[in-house]
Amino acid sequence: MSDHDVAAIEAAVADLRKQVSDLHAQLPDNGLVMWTGGNVSGRVPGHDLFVIKPSGVMYPDLAPENMIVCDLDGNAIPGTLGSDRSPSSDTAAHAYVYRTMPHVGGVVHTHSPYATAWAARNEEIPCVITGMADEFGGPIPVGPFAIIGDDSIGRGIVATLDGHRSRAVLMANHGVFTIGKDAKDAVKAAVMCEDVARTVHIAKQGGELVPIPQDKIDALFNRYQNVYGQKPQGGMA
Amino acid sequence: MSDHDVAAIEAAVADLRKQVSDLHAQLPDNGLVMWTGGNVSGRVPGHDLFVIKPSGVMYPDLAPENMIVCDLDGNAIPGTLGSDRSPSSDTAAHAYVYRTMPHVGGVVHTHSPYATAWAARNEEIPCVITGMADEFGGPIPVGPFAIIGDDSIGRGIVATLDGHRSRAVLMANHGVFTIGKDAKDAVKAAVMCEDVARTVHIAKQGGELVPIPQDKIDALFNRYQNVYGQKPQGGMA
Amino acid sequence: MSDHDVAAIEAAVADLRKQVSDLHAQLPDNGLVMWTGGNVSGRVPGHDLFVIKPSGVMYPDLAPENMIVCDLDGNAIPGTLGSDRSPSSDTAAHAYVYRTMPHVGGVVHTHSPYATAWAARNEEIPCVITGMADEFGGPIPVGPFAIIGDDSIGRGIVATLDGHRSRAVLMANHGVFTIGKDAKDAVKAAVMCEDVARTVHIAKQGGELVPIPQDKIDALFNRYQNVYGQKPQGGMA
Amino acid sequence: MSDHDVAAIEAAVADLRKQVSDLHAQLPDNGLVMWTGGNVSGRVPGHDLFVIKPSGVMYPDLAPENMIVCDLDGNAIPGTLGSDRSPSSDTAAHAYVYRTMPHVGGVVHTHSPYATAWAARNEEIPCVITGMADEFGGPIPVGPFAIIGDDSIGRGIVATLDGHRSRAVLMANHGVFTIGKDAKDAVKAAVMCEDVARTVHIAKQGGELVPIPQDKIDALFNRYQNVYGQKPQGGMA
Repeated sequence: MSDHDVAAIEAAVADLRKQVSDLHAQLPDNGLVMWTGGNVSGRVPGHDLFVIKPSGVMYPDLAPENMIVCDLDGNAIPGTLGSDRSPSSDTAAHAYVYRTMPHVGGVVHTHSPYATAWAARNEEIPCVITGMADEFGGPIPVGPFAIIGDDSIGRGIVATLDGHRSRAVLMANHGVFTIGKDAKDAVKAAVMCEDVARTVHIAKQGGELVPIPQDKIDALFNRYQNVYGQKPQGGMA
Repeated sequence: MSDHDVAAIEAAVADLRKQVSDLHAQLPDNGLVMWTGGNVSGRVPGHDLFVIKPSGVMYPDLAPENMIVCDLDGNAIPGTLGSDRSPSSDTAAHAYVYRTMPHVGGVVHTHSPYATAWAARNEEIPCVITGMADEFGGPIPVGPFAIIGDDSIGRGIVATLDGHRSRAVLMANHGVFTIGKDAKDAVKAAVMCEDVARTVHIAKQGGELVPIPQDKIDALFNRYQNVYGQKPQGGMA
Repeated sequence: MSDHDVAAIEAAVADLRKQVSDLHAQLPDNGLVMWTGGNVSGRVPGHDLFVIKPSGVMYPDLAPENMIVCDLDGNAIPGTLGSDRSPSSDTAAHAYVYRTMPHVGGVVHTHSPYATAWAARNEEIPCVITGMADEFGGPIPVGPFAIIGDDSIGRGIVATLDGHRSRAVLMANHGVFTIGKDAKDAVKAAVMCEDVARTVHIAKQGGELVPIPQDKIDALFNRYQNVYGQKPQGGMA
Repeated sequence: MSDHDVAAIEAAVADLRKQVSDLHAQLPDNGLVMWTGGNVSGRVPGHDLFVIKPSGVMYPDLAPENMIVCDLDGNAIPGTLGSDRSPSSDTAAHAYVYRTMPHVGGVVHTHSPYATAWAARNEEIPCVITGMADEFGGPIPVGPFAIIGDDSIGRGIVATLDGHRSRAVLMANHGVFTIGKDAKDAVKAAVMCEDVARTVHIAKQGGELVPIPQDKIDALFNRYQNVYGQKPQGGMA
């Protein structure tokens, strides 16, 4: 790749490098990750590229300049900043999502403890609190068991979330993947997924859960996607 | 509204803007909220107004000048600072409480995890620890299932708390609302509600709870409302 | 009291004011207290006095000069710094312990969540981990149900801990009191009490606990009281 | 020992003193220890020496110059910095590991709450999440009950971990020991051990765990030991 092309890419990704790097701080701050686990990526607007965390780097050492720019096959773009390092070992899964879900602008992966506990039982999280209806529109589903090494994790994420209200999937015996309209939206989904995973776990430990009628779940989800916040935001539905 | 009227309101709310903004920090610091969830409001002494958090703003971005001044129907006062934003999506519930409970000076709403877990089972928190008798005078009650969009949440809060010793209500499948003589007192109630929700949950997981005799609960509550702290404070009873 | 006497007392308590004030930070830092709950006191060496936290003051506002100097009946010494405020509402219990247990140099009270959960079931914490044998020499016992207002809490603490290896007692349906050779030692006992209350609770939730043979508990306790740390320290046994 | 020898040792351990001291901060930061509990050590490359924490010192007071240099019998080297203090009371166990496992470069000991809860039931942690297969290659095993005072803890650690994929052992009714190629690797194992102990505990509380097929565990472990991170790292297999 020519120096000219690299410079054009760096210009296009400069803001996103900082956004993605900064958003990583939300993962340890919200108790979603330990050590070097977890990763956030964001699609580069107008390019077939995304920005993702390097593999095996401690959180305090993350910085805009060591985020890695990848094409939609998950290959680092030679010559760009950080391309001397390996991207996150989950890059193939992120890449598969960006290739096949054009409306997705951000992807997050964590092994957050309560959500991963549901995943270890291959059990969806039932929608028994209104905040979960707002954010996810129903239960958080379980995706297939798949291991790293090919496209099987990416395929499982897409097969589960495509057409689903939820922006979060519990990959069986593994952890959480979330999608969003941008990286921040996907991080929000990861934070709220762990929050509801914890609350519903605690609730279930104490006795019988009371379900919310489906029409109320629908009403809450529709309202939240349209009117919450300072301008329309939320999921991608 | 004239510039003169706006200036008079801003003069009346200046201290309260800072109090309410600062008190919001207690919510994440005490583990009561995630992301932009939760809200605190305070009544403006001597005016039919209250100050509340804007909708969908991250906690570190809250500041006195973006708190929103509302009338008792929950409408932002045109021309006041922050009135270009939407107030919290829970503003209607806060407004209903201020309209119908004139002794209430502060309202807080959270989805704090342990309290919301009890709410997901529509189960009141039994009063089995003396600190809970001090603070709440008995069990923390469950309010009706109600969804956002009209006065039904506000009506449920008032119907449950009016005449009740508790300053906290677990709204079914939703979360916690607390009231207080001022915003700080309502925040204290929200913090203590989560504390007892957690302790009693843990206790119940381990076996049989030992009840406290009603006359002891009464004695503890009456003492705490009258003699604790540097001067009389506590609930509004 | 003469200005001269007050000055002599202030000279005697200057270091202790700072120690007791600083030690209070350990309570929120270790998750033992919420809001203004919890209190630490320390005996003034060579005087029938102790220093304790004021009532109802937020943790960040505690400082050496607002700690309160009390006699062994729990009365603030007129003219000393901070004596315009009320001492902690638990002062009578601290005073009773200092009056009747001359070897005690520090007392701590908290409603730390896991320990208070055991207290809500009036259930002692069994000694199933070696760190608990080291620190407490066996189970952490339950004291009687007693409410604030007279000496009954203090009597219950002393009746339970006098001659017991444990420096911590779970007061029934209330919370934890710990004693120590000085204020720091009592704070350590409060921190370790919550730690073992949590670990043993989690262990018990998962299945059958494996007991430690009594002779091993004895050996661990005896060794720890004599050889751990840079010089002999630990409990008062 | 001559001043010359001491100077040579100090030159050899200078970097390691800082590494081991700094790594201790990971223990409280990750919720693995309370008060003065827990310890990290690292082998001095090319010498029959290791560096370890002093006994009974608070975490904020740890510094490179108070770390203690010991020979492989666990005796502090006279004349070296910090040798006027006692090394960690767990030094004998660390020394035994270094003597008998020459490929081990770091050892960590904690009483982290979830892992110690499994230890209190003498129950291994089953491998039901892929991140655990990556890091530990299967279940985290239980070692024998052994108490401090001779080599029995060290012998139990080595007997359990020698030839095992796991770098962590749950010593019965006691806590966790981890080993690594260096001190940082052992700290990582301690952090991840607590993480999986917590997640699997929570999962088990909620119902039936779904096992991962053995061939998938094998594939995950082999890949992670060889390709994760910026260069080959991970366990010592």
